[in-house]
Amino acid sequence: MERVVIALGGNALLRRGAEDTFEEMYRASRLAAERIADIAAAGWEVVVTHGNGPQVGRILLQQEAAKEVVHPMPLDVCGAESQGQIGYLLQVTIGDVFFERSMERPVTTILSLTRVRAQDPAFRNPTKFVGPYYEEPQAKQLEQERGYVMKADPHGGWRRVVPSPKPYSIVETPVIERLVSAGVIVIASGGGGVPVIEKGPRLIGKEGVVDKDLAAAILAHEVGASVLLILTDVKKVQRGFGSLYPEDIDRMTAGEAKSMLKKGEFGAGSMGPKVQAAVNFVEAGGSRAVIADLDDATSALEGTNGSEVVAG
Amino acid sequence: MERVVIALGGNALLRRGAEDTFEEMYRASRLAAERIADIAAAGWEVVVTHGNGPQVGRILLQQEAAKEVVHPMPLDVCGAESQGQIGYLLQVTIGDVFFERSMERPVTTILSLTRVRAQDPAFRNPTKFVGPYYEEPQAKQLEQERGYVMKADPHGGWRRVVPSPKPYSIVETPVIERLVSAGVIVIASGGGGVPVIEKGPRLIGKEGVVDKDLAAAILAHEVGASVLLILTDVKKVQRGFGSLYPEDIDRMTAGEAKSMLKKGEFGAGSMGPKVQAAVNFVEAGGSRAVIADLDDATSALEGTNGSEVVAG
Repeated sequence: MERVVIALGGNALLRRGAEDTFEEMYRASRLAAERIADIAAAGWEVVVTHGNGPQVGRILLQQEAAKEVVHPMPLDVCGAESQGQIGYLLQVTIGDVFFERSMERPVTTILSLTRVRAQDPAFRNPTKFVGPYYEEPQAKQLEQERGYVMKADPHGGWRRVVPSPKPYSIVETPVIERLVSAGVIVIASGGGGVPVIEKGPRLIGKEGVVDKDLAAAILAHEVGASVLLILTDVKKVQRGFGSLYPEDIDRMTAGEAKSMLKKGEFGAGSMGPKVQAAVNFVEAGGSRAVIADLDDATSALEGTNGSEVVAG
Repeated sequence: MERVVIALGGNALLRRGAEDTFEEMYRASRLAAERIADIAAAGWEVVVTHGNGPQVGRILLQQEAAKEVVHPMPLDVCGAESQGQIGYLLQVTIGDVFFERSMERPVTTILSLTRVRAQDPAFRNPTKFVGPYYEEPQAKQLEQERGYVMKADPHGGWRRVVPSPKPYSIVETPVIERLVSAGVIVIASGGGGVPVIEKGPRLIGKEGVVDKDLAAAILAHEVGASVLLILTDVKKVQRGFGSLYPEDIDRMTAGEAKSMLKKGEFGAGSMGPKVQAAVNFVEAGGSRAVIADLDDATSALEGTNGSEVVAG
């Protein structure tokens, strides 16, 4: 059986502009679950991974609001919490869709850790904004009190910044591999996984954020997936993004993609890391990576939709 | 290889009276991890389960404090969050101890759901206090606004009460069984698992709390464990608990235990459900259940410490 790692973007968990209620999250998750069921029904072994930015953001707001009565937990613990929250929602909605279609496939969520390097330069230069917005004096106080690094956010106000180190290996791969081989739909590496460094023989959780698409590429390689399917809310990757005449890309080689990445053709948003993840996967030996709209998941997997990255 | 399900009480995650900081939780979790490592090193296959009462309580406080900016999630979602949080902490500390002892056993946390019956009378009579304390007018308002059931807490103030339905099956057993058979230390059924009812073919999450020891007994039976080891912070179960001359129990048959349960010999606290869980396990065919102090885990498993329940 062929194996696919499906990376769900934030819009698969909460549609743009929707209120962050449980009902809206359930609704969005169900749409993703329908597409996952389509793919599983077509005979694929499936690992699902997902982002967690908005969810961790909400947990951080809650921690801050309650800080006088409940000690805030470090970011790695919050990331693990978000994996439980999102994994549960995905697991239940996928389960619902499967049962409605009389598909008997178990679905399981694995709490995931991702190895990053202690010497990753990201640890000396944290850049990823997380959590609540503050006025400057409060921000300075948090730097003193908690050792946070605070920066002025381009959107206004001050926020904490944390490192976004590069992932190089998924701690739970052997377990995920074993389960997916047995036909289980595995939800794993949520939010890119909790970043851990190896210190001698120990794994130490770090406060940071791993790019979920880069982690998905590693996971897809490690479990021997033939396809990495990155689902988002745009139909195609565009070159000359933001210019007057952007151009849809149907297919590119890893080499072409790298040259476009270098030229900044994909804009400053989140498309760059997705293309980079696709490149990493095929360069590590994966046969294809596809970036597509969630709605087009099945045709993208078949190669007739989205933007495909292949070796070369 | 023999197989044990270890149920960790709240004190294994945060010692009585300790502040609920990450550092204290890590410290408590490490002590539990040491005992789990002892047992794994003695050649046992191990499934670890744990309570989540204080952790869910903190998440509910955080949700309440931030409710103007972040929509609160239902209790089942909070339970899943707590499984991520506690599972992460246990997994990391167990991993730390294993590595220090040069033990190569993978450790994995499985998000767990527990089947309960839609017609369980607990749903018509919620009794379990959860979350923040309120004044009566606020409590009445929450009944109106959110459909909560609120009751006066014997400790003062008003709190939400939720059902505590009886578990009858663990959704993730096949996955847990597969992993534990492969030598993985599995952390599962945290907080008793998120309660779900079957509605036709669907699993629907319910706002409620499953007793973690009763769920552990079912899990132990379903994975074919020979021993259920319930770890808490008392050396022995006592009969005539709270009387002038309580008596330590070294060993009792399921029949003796049931008769003492009926007479209320174990007091109104949490020992009753632990003894009941032990009875359920041996009556379902398990060879022994032991209730013991966390510090005595190894000798209790060997049968020379704690209070043992056997068939008969």
